Amino acid sequence: MRNFDDIGKTRWVIAEGWLPPKGPHPEDRALASHEASCILNAGPRDAQIALTVFFGDREPAGPFNLSVPARRVLHLRFDDLIEPEPLPRETDFASIIDSDEPIIVQHTRLDMRTGSPALMSTVAFGAS
Amino acid sequence: MRNFDDIGKTRWVIAEGWLPPKGPHPEDRALASHEASCILNAGPRDAQIALTVFFGDREPAGPFNLSVPARRVLHLRFDDLIEPEPLPRETDFASIIDSDEPIIVQHTRLDMRTGSPALMSTVAFGAS
Amino acid sequence: MRNFDDIGKTRWVIAEGWLPPKGPHPEDRALASHEASCILNAGPRDAQIALTVFFGDREPAGPFNLSVPARRVLHLRFDDLIEPEPLPRETDFASIIDSDEPIIVQHTRLDMRTGSPALMSTVAFGAS
Amino acid sequence: MRNFDDIGKTRWVIAEGWLPPKGPHPEDRALASHEASCILNAGPRDAQIALTVFFGDREPAGPFNLSVPARRVLHLRFDDLIEPEPLPRETDFASIIDSDEPIIVQHTRLDMRTGSPALMSTVAFGAS
Repeated sequence: MRNFDDIGKTRWVIAEGWLPPKGPHPEDRALASHEASCILNAGPRDAQIALTVFFGDREPAGPFNLSVPARRVLHLRFDDLIEPEPLPRETDFASIIDSDEPIIVQHTRLDMRTGSPALMSTVAFGAS
Repeated sequence: MRNFDDIGKTRWVIAEGWLPPKGPHPEDRALASHEASCILNAGPRDAQIALTVFFGDREPAGPFNLSVPARRVLHLRFDDLIEPEPLPRETDFASIIDSDEPIIVQHTRLDMRTGSPALMSTVAFGAS
Repeated sequence: MRNFDDIGKTRWVIAEGWLPPKGPHPEDRALASHEASCILNAGPRDAQIALTVFFGDREPAGPFNLSVPARRVLHLRFDDLIEPEPLPRETDFASIIDSDEPIIVQHTRLDMRTGSPALMSTVAFGAS
Repeated sequence: MRNFDDIGKTRWVIAEGWLPPKGPHPEDRALASHEASCILNAGPRDAQIALTVFFGDREPAGPFNLSVPARRVLHLRFDDLIEPEPLPRETDFASIIDSDEPIIVQHTRLDMRTGSPALMSTVAFGAS
């Protein structure tokens, strides 16, 4: 296999965040509205990640601690975050993702609140 | 908490701008068409921001002055801009966001004009 | 007004391009499927722009010559290109935008072929 | 024609990947759900490309070998990949694209699973 060491950055920012109402299929994980941070750790070492969430009207929440094994991708859904606190729906937020290993982060939302799907995606801002 | 000083840039550009007709739910703020500039100020000082709007057939408008407190995110909706002038709907525009503190900007639009949602989002162009 | 000289780059690339069928509102310019390159020239001099279009199975087309006046935005619709040749619909393409002044480019598509809107947008790749 | 040598990068990353169910038009190639990596090789030499796919719970797949001729664009659909193995649908993945010539990569998904289209697109992360 090729050498995939040291690809990416260790700090990423997603300035947009908002969890839509789940829509008409709340029990169908793939079809309920969600927002995800897709994190690729292409390197040879597991990555320890700390996620901090910023709001419009209160101090930041977190860190939410997670890990992404070596050579794996994690599609982190923000509605799966529980510890130290769940994120409220229909509330503006933003997030910063810090990793001890270089990673690549892409931000995606599926909005199903009306029953018709809307999607958006962008590579996050790689800060350092 | 981690050190979140000096993350981002002080000048951002969004080359795309167009406010769609509001659609069938004009009184529902979350479901009426809108375009937003999500601005994260992760740092320890409040950010003073000047927004300039460019058009296809007239001189630029602004600056629109706003502030984003330290450690807060602002989901600025372009249809909330009033002073020095409101932005017209269904008109091509672009915007430049200048800040006295480093920030991160992501551009998002919800288009509800037909009643079915369409979304788009991209990290803005960080110019300096 | 602030100093908006020298913002952006002089060569931009959009690797994705495809003009969807116009959909059920072919005569409504805003609601017919289209693909646009939003070009902001924030500077004090008019920009002369040359657009080259690449295909999957033939030599490139162009240059398509256009200009964006100082302090103006142009939402260039690819289906408006006529000279030296119109672009075919439902055909894969890509484009490179060269300018003699620094500009910022964002790529957007509205797909209305089924009657329900889908949108996508991304800042183009700034090559130099 | 202008000089289009040396535009782009030789390693690109798409951290998001997921092939939706094909939806109600599985036999219509343009209207069946798909995910594409649009690759522009604007230069004067053919590009040899190796695609590696990462997953959440197993070792990476690939390399998938392909080529993009000089001055051509390739809209590579992930559901067309067969050798060394097809990609499963409804499974999280990510991809790294290595090229021996500079290229530009943009990532796009059409999600038709409900019958209403949703689109997303972003320039990939140019790693080197």
